[in-house]
Amino acid sequence: MISAGIIGASGYTGGELLRLLDNHSRVEVVAATSRQYSGLPVSRVHPHLQDTDLKFEESMEKMDADIVFTATPHGASMKIVPDLLERGMRVVDLSGDYRFQNIRTYEEWYGIKHEKPLEAVYGLPEIHREEIASADLVANPGCFPTGAILACLPLVYEKLADTFIIDSKTGVSGAGVKPTPLTHYPECSDNVTAYNVTRHRHTPEIRQELSRFNPVRLSFTPHLVPVTRGILTTAHAFLNEDLRQDELREIFRGFYDGEPFVRVVDGMPVLSAVRGSNFCHIGCFEVDDNQRAVIVSAIDNLVKGASGQAIQNMNIMCGFSEVEGLDFPGMHP
Amino acid sequence: MISAGIIGASGYTGGELLRLLDNHSRVEVVAATSRQYSGLPVSRVHPHLQDTDLKFEESMEKMDADIVFTATPHGASMKIVPDLLERGMRVVDLSGDYRFQNIRTYEEWYGIKHEKPLEAVYGLPEIHREEIASADLVANPGCFPTGAILACLPLVYEKLADTFIIDSKTGVSGAGVKPTPLTHYPECSDNVTAYNVTRHRHTPEIRQELSRFNPVRLSFTPHLVPVTRGILTTAHAFLNEDLRQDELREIFRGFYDGEPFVRVVDGMPVLSAVRGSNFCHIGCFEVDDNQRAVIVSAIDNLVKGASGQAIQNMNIMCGFSEVEGLDFPGMHP
Amino acid sequence: MISAGIIGASGYTGGELLRLLDNHSRVEVVAATSRQYSGLPVSRVHPHLQDTDLKFEESMEKMDADIVFTATPHGASMKIVPDLLERGMRVVDLSGDYRFQNIRTYEEWYGIKHEKPLEAVYGLPEIHREEIASADLVANPGCFPTGAILACLPLVYEKLADTFIIDSKTGVSGAGVKPTPLTHYPECSDNVTAYNVTRHRHTPEIRQELSRFNPVRLSFTPHLVPVTRGILTTAHAFLNEDLRQDELREIFRGFYDGEPFVRVVDGMPVLSAVRGSNFCHIGCFEVDDNQRAVIVSAIDNLVKGASGQAIQNMNIMCGFSEVEGLDFPGMHP
Amino acid sequence: MISAGIIGASGYTGGELLRLLDNHSRVEVVAATSRQYSGLPVSRVHPHLQDTDLKFEESMEKMDADIVFTATPHGASMKIVPDLLERGMRVVDLSGDYRFQNIRTYEEWYGIKHEKPLEAVYGLPEIHREEIASADLVANPGCFPTGAILACLPLVYEKLADTFIIDSKTGVSGAGVKPTPLTHYPECSDNVTAYNVTRHRHTPEIRQELSRFNPVRLSFTPHLVPVTRGILTTAHAFLNEDLRQDELREIFRGFYDGEPFVRVVDGMPVLSAVRGSNFCHIGCFEVDDNQRAVIVSAIDNLVKGASGQAIQNMNIMCGFSEVEGLDFPGMHP
Repeated sequence: MISAGIIGASGYTGGELLRLLDNHSRVEVVAATSRQYSGLPVSRVHPHLQDTDLKFEESMEKMDADIVFTATPHGASMKIVPDLLERGMRVVDLSGDYRFQNIRTYEEWYGIKHEKPLEAVYGLPEIHREEIASADLVANPGCFPTGAILACLPLVYEKLADTFIIDSKTGVSGAGVKPTPLTHYPECSDNVTAYNVTRHRHTPEIRQELSRFNPVRLSFTPHLVPVTRGILTTAHAFLNEDLRQDELREIFRGFYDGEPFVRVVDGMPVLSAVRGSNFCHIGCFEVDDNQRAVIVSAIDNLVKGASGQAIQNMNIMCGFSEVEGLDFPGMHP
Repeated sequence: MISAGIIGASGYTGGELLRLLDNHSRVEVVAATSRQYSGLPVSRVHPHLQDTDLKFEESMEKMDADIVFTATPHGASMKIVPDLLERGMRVVDLSGDYRFQNIRTYEEWYGIKHEKPLEAVYGLPEIHREEIASADLVANPGCFPTGAILACLPLVYEKLADTFIIDSKTGVSGAGVKPTPLTHYPECSDNVTAYNVTRHRHTPEIRQELSRFNPVRLSFTPHLVPVTRGILTTAHAFLNEDLRQDELREIFRGFYDGEPFVRVVDGMPVLSAVRGSNFCHIGCFEVDDNQRAVIVSAIDNLVKGASGQAIQNMNIMCGFSEVEGLDFPGMHP
Repeated sequence: MISAGIIGASGYTGGELLRLLDNHSRVEVVAATSRQYSGLPVSRVHPHLQDTDLKFEESMEKMDADIVFTATPHGASMKIVPDLLERGMRVVDLSGDYRFQNIRTYEEWYGIKHEKPLEAVYGLPEIHREEIASADLVANPGCFPTGAILACLPLVYEKLADTFIIDSKTGVSGAGVKPTPLTHYPECSDNVTAYNVTRHRHTPEIRQELSRFNPVRLSFTPHLVPVTRGILTTAHAFLNEDLRQDELREIFRGFYDGEPFVRVVDGMPVLSAVRGSNFCHIGCFEVDDNQRAVIVSAIDNLVKGASGQAIQNMNIMCGFSEVEGLDFPGMHP
Repeated sequence: MISAGIIGASGYTGGELLRLLDNHSRVEVVAATSRQYSGLPVSRVHPHLQDTDLKFEESMEKMDADIVFTATPHGASMKIVPDLLERGMRVVDLSGDYRFQNIRTYEEWYGIKHEKPLEAVYGLPEIHREEIASADLVANPGCFPTGAILACLPLVYEKLADTFIIDSKTGVSGAGVKPTPLTHYPECSDNVTAYNVTRHRHTPEIRQELSRFNPVRLSFTPHLVPVTRGILTTAHAFLNEDLRQDELREIFRGFYDGEPFVRVVDGMPVLSAVRGSNFCHIGCFEVDDNQRAVIVSAIDNLVKGASGQAIQNMNIMCGFSEVEGLDFPGMHP
């Protein structure tokens, strides 16, 4: 049994960490912090978590835990994480602060001066499982990058494609718990909105990880769709050679063989199949007469795209079974 | 470890039984039947259940199990259940066929001649826990009755009210997996539709169970709302005496004390708080100057309103912990 | 041709006034005010209104118009309307400030001290058409009261019922354009929420208008549903005499005969049938064995429930055809 | 005043034709046919059209009209249209039967042997306005092609791009009025589904029209999103030269100058801005460092994507003002 702390526990990813860890046999959550709700019971903010006695703490300044999840905004994590590490805690950071090898890329795309770059492992187990195991600081991937990288990775690794248009559709929970005009129900219901069409911060993150294997020419455009949870990624890839659908599917099947949370499916991936779960479904693989292949991936942005993957990383870091606490299917319908 | 069969496993309640039993440490599903999909892998029909090797069977005529869930339509269960019982299997029936003490009530409201009335226990553990434990046939409650009875029961039991208007709002999954004009997305999205306004079959079921404790004058009207899962029940009760909100809440707290799946909440119950879980949240308790009290309950129609409650009943029948396989919170947002 | 001003034109009811008046042959909008967006083109705030050259004004302090719509919040209208009237403009006020005959009722339910009570006509044409014609100040009804009064009025007028439970379901646009936690997409999508269950401000408004014809014992409870536009009102009425569905329908048909915007329909009213239009559909009329009748009405909260009715009132005030600019059906699907 | 007939009037496009023609000062609908509902009042099927006395006819075999809209499925139109033309009626056909110059393309993509190819004009006024004016048979464009062609046309015409990935998101009403598993509410709510990813029939239609101006290498992939009306088209175009966002916007502004129903907007196009209207909004124009430009267009699939465009074509054919009956903005929110 290890102890865990969650910093920034009142948001959606904080709520998911609490929901999922409730189901984990090896972890006890000893602290959940929230500046805004400090002193209030967790059940007041998270209406589904009625059976916990936890109250929000102001901070973890005087508390210890074996592992800490920092579900804090970009720019806030870098003010907290160094101290946690110095005090001997291991950290999974859910912000963008430690995801970039080149700190300039971070500063350019996030518009924030980085206070203290640290050595961190990019927490996509399908690429970095071994380094994660021994890391003290894991930078949990962004939600779009998780779905996009997993959809493109086998093609890049096998050098089958290098030009990609990634057109993603995300549920609104990805925008966080804070109401904004864009997330106001009458504005986003019955609507689809493209945003940050060429300048989304997740673009360089996707490029960084795919380029480890081969250079890519990659364009990324996200859309907000009237869905609560889930990211459907449609990756349009121009193939370097003539491949059929079944060949592509076999390449993906081989590549992800043994992966506990990636499933190459026969039908078309749908969000409801992974809703609430840590699975990533990948499918489609159709190729048109322009030698464009279409790869579709589906994840739950709050689980495999955030908190579930964070727990998967924790499992790897702590030597637990990688699927502990996460071993359940999605919720359809 | 016991073995379980699911008859009618291709619908939504069948899918939920499979999803939830996957999470149960004491049960192995040995058979899932579907006439329509016989021979096909379960994963083809239930896109979230990718990790099972089960295939749909044509029937259970030549198969055995310790317990069988009949997720079959009204009128179909009565053709199957007697044989299962004779062959020594215990049964939780999810249809309406065995819910009524007075067979004429069933025949009048369902318009079906009952072929073979049998002794069965009405499977609402909050009322019939003891009889369920020893029953061979449990009639799992309807979705609306579960939410409605739990919202009204303490008032009836304590003789605090006898006139009720129950106005319920249900998600569309309650209509089942078969497409109809009413459940066609462009028709039910952005719409609210009252239906079976005075003649819904669940009316006599609610009356039967509440009348065990005191006579009631009860009207019930359901509405279809653009929600996938969940039933929000608004019970308007004319009180016999002058009670305040906090007094009512305490009466409910006392009544449901120790119940594993009923939570009397401080705030207003919301569907997302119980989504995917077996919990029933009850709250509100406001009283207006007409001495009308408003009790609001929230359940997931496919879980506490169907498959979760069926598993809860199985746990009681088999002497397992009542919460085994169901001990997780809802999914919000 | 008359000139019209809209004060508070950047919200949803302001946008609807602009959309609908665009379609009106006898009115020119000469001023649309918004403190927040003063100086900006109307098309920047209302993305559908690309063909207008109007810009938001700071106020109408130095502008004149034949008629002014005050789409301002409760408490704000009373600061503006007296001056407009003194300057000789006629006013349709969309707030609650002038709806109450008894100013104490207003002050008690709105928690606001009324600065300057004025003589006003309650702008429900189905009750007050004649007084509206000659009024200088019309208090446009609330959205819930419009649907609720029209559903109950014939029963009260004919003294067929005096006890009502009104259970209403409203779309989220009724909450206005300002984002709040309650209207945040992930919170209200896939959810149904009861609110102001016994204390909604529209309760005394409904009572006031129905009590003109006979005393009523009336309870009102609204719910927020995941719908953008529309209010479905389910009025549960305990009848004083034994009436059948077809008799009730004929009573309603007779009562509303000749009304340009009330339709007594054969089927069940649905929100999509009136979406975007000024119609109120009324139907159902089922009676159960408790002599409870169910009357269902459907309106678009932004049209018949606000801006469309305001224009209907203007048409009556100005001697135009009552349907001018509003003579088009709803948008289904 | 001319007379119009609608063949296949019980579906969504039929309902839209009726709704929109109700608003048209120069046309009287004299016949609306439906095999399935023959003899029933139109108001029984279209709940919003309560004020028409029209009843569905079995067919137009014995009826005449100046113009006929055939809102019939692919393959059915070709059995009806020749007879209508021979009898001297002009026809706007909403199916795919007459959209292709090369009949083999039709037969290959639709899998239907064409019984009787006829000379027809492709009814996109922005390309073929002059030929439409004198045509007896206009082939109304498909919904996806309308949004896609308008988004790409200026770039092709100006030879600024020749490689396009078109990723479209459509509302569910595009699938028609008939319930299917794909359009069942619990399946498509909260989901996004890619379909006909490389083989959608609208692909050759888009290619045909754009290739009139310059050869294109074009890939098209549609997605079903939980929206009732609307198509958002995201056109990813690889530019042949280095252009900035404002330059692209000016090129589009110039190209569509004077077009009554195309608006090049400053912000991002959203579906609600065109909902229920005949407008196409085009915007975005961002360019990334791969010289990929993103053009976004928004239409209502049932209006500019079907029935509204059909009426626009009729206006041109009959010498009416092109905007007659269509001159109103979209409905937001």
